[in-house]
Amino acid sequence: MKATTRWVRFRSPDGGIGIGTVHGATVAVHAGSLFESPLPTGASLEMADVRMLAPCVPSKMVALWNNFGALAAKLGKQPPVHPLYFIKPATCIIGTGDAIERPASYAGKIAYEGELGIVIGKRCKDVAADDADDHIFGYTCVNDVTAADILNETPDFAQWCRCKGFDTFGAIGPAIATNIDLSQARVITRVAGVERQNYPLSDMIFSPAELVSRISRDMSLLPGDVIACGTSVGVGSIRDGAVVEVYIEGIGSLANSLRPPAP
Amino acid sequence: MKATTRWVRFRSPDGGIGIGTVHGATVAVHAGSLFESPLPTGASLEMADVRMLAPCVPSKMVALWNNFGALAAKLGKQPPVHPLYFIKPATCIIGTGDAIERPASYAGKIAYEGELGIVIGKRCKDVAADDADDHIFGYTCVNDVTAADILNETPDFAQWCRCKGFDTFGAIGPAIATNIDLSQARVITRVAGVERQNYPLSDMIFSPAELVSRISRDMSLLPGDVIACGTSVGVGSIRDGAVVEVYIEGIGSLANSLRPPAP
Repeated sequence: MKATTRWVRFRSPDGGIGIGTVHGATVAVHAGSLFESPLPTGASLEMADVRMLAPCVPSKMVALWNNFGALAAKLGKQPPVHPLYFIKPATCIIGTGDAIERPASYAGKIAYEGELGIVIGKRCKDVAADDADDHIFGYTCVNDVTAADILNETPDFAQWCRCKGFDTFGAIGPAIATNIDLSQARVITRVAGVERQNYPLSDMIFSPAELVSRISRDMSLLPGDVIACGTSVGVGSIRDGAVVEVYIEGIGSLANSLRPPAP
Repeated sequence: MKATTRWVRFRSPDGGIGIGTVHGATVAVHAGSLFESPLPTGASLEMADVRMLAPCVPSKMVALWNNFGALAAKLGKQPPVHPLYFIKPATCIIGTGDAIERPASYAGKIAYEGELGIVIGKRCKDVAADDADDHIFGYTCVNDVTAADILNETPDFAQWCRCKGFDTFGAIGPAIATNIDLSQARVITRVAGVERQNYPLSDMIFSPAELVSRISRDMSLLPGDVIACGTSVGVGSIRDGAVVEVYIEGIGSLANSLRPPAP
């Protein structure tokens, strides 16, 4: 297996946007596109001096429903025969440290869902499962934020795209880790410091390779697109002001607070 | 009211991509971005010499369900209290003359839905209905193509994004018409030359201004984004090889054939 690398995207002290690899408390700055073998410039920055951004700029997020055995069992759902998903728009993406903004129009429950995110590295169309790994750049943490009361507000149309598509409702980061072994990894979600989710990725119904393959038969996936692999048990709500952290070993901790609208 | 203009995007005989305004059988070529007051270059091309492209490059299409009174009445649905929509990804967009491609994995019914499309001209976030017109660049025709058998394939999750998100399933064009009066306009859909839909835009439940305003309170809309306003009665299926035309007076005729997979 190749060495693991953790890629970040950041705003540097001079205001510019950069990318680089994480080495302890420093970032080795790289030049070029993340998906076209960027090269180190030789410069490095202290992590403490940069503002982290979403580690990539997806054209869309494809987000799974009912993709973990434990949650399916709890909800009494059969495992699906094909990945079941909705789309979150690019306009909902934020990075670690950014606030999740409560919409001015919505006073109801806002839920966190800690998830693994697959970051696409090469355009995918009708990719075989055996070739999918070549199209995956790496993995990130996702918080698939949801305005939960909207989903079933009307009886005849589940509003997946609306309740999950608000600006700032797609948190990704802090890094994209390449070449990591996910077989033993767990997704851990903490809200205001209290652990609320801790589930193994080995319980996933469709593996990352299968997701990329099958979704690529529906729609082209572009470099930087994110597939959010679905969540498992322990989903709950976020109080205004609370910080949600989604942690996966090898990737890091994605932390976002829920900000109420200005009075 | 300002003069109506019909904007097109095209591939010219030299292979480059251009934009321009339609004047009879010629296009007056313009330079610059469509949404930033492009200027005429003085050059003109014969329409017959250019290949039409989708008239803009949306970052997403927001597509309405249950937005016409006649279809709601036919299906026994109550008018919604908020626009009900799903998202079609940018990767599904095609222009007039492009083929709708039947997915290799899908042998079932493929449906047309002729619709009005709103093209956003300025970034919208929390726009008031009274200000919405300032954010609308113009209008286009939409064929919201659907792999109909997939929608309710599984009982507990309606697959809106999947059944409508296949590459080539979002046809828009042929032009974007600015400053048109839609109060008397009708959407006419013909399949293999036979009229299958002919419904008035005056039957729309949420008007274009209301759609832009309300959706912009959910998610930011970007220049070039398209809101497909929903369809009315007369939806049906397309046989392989048949041409579907969606016509709205003042905009023109969007024509696409359904191409089966190569054997």
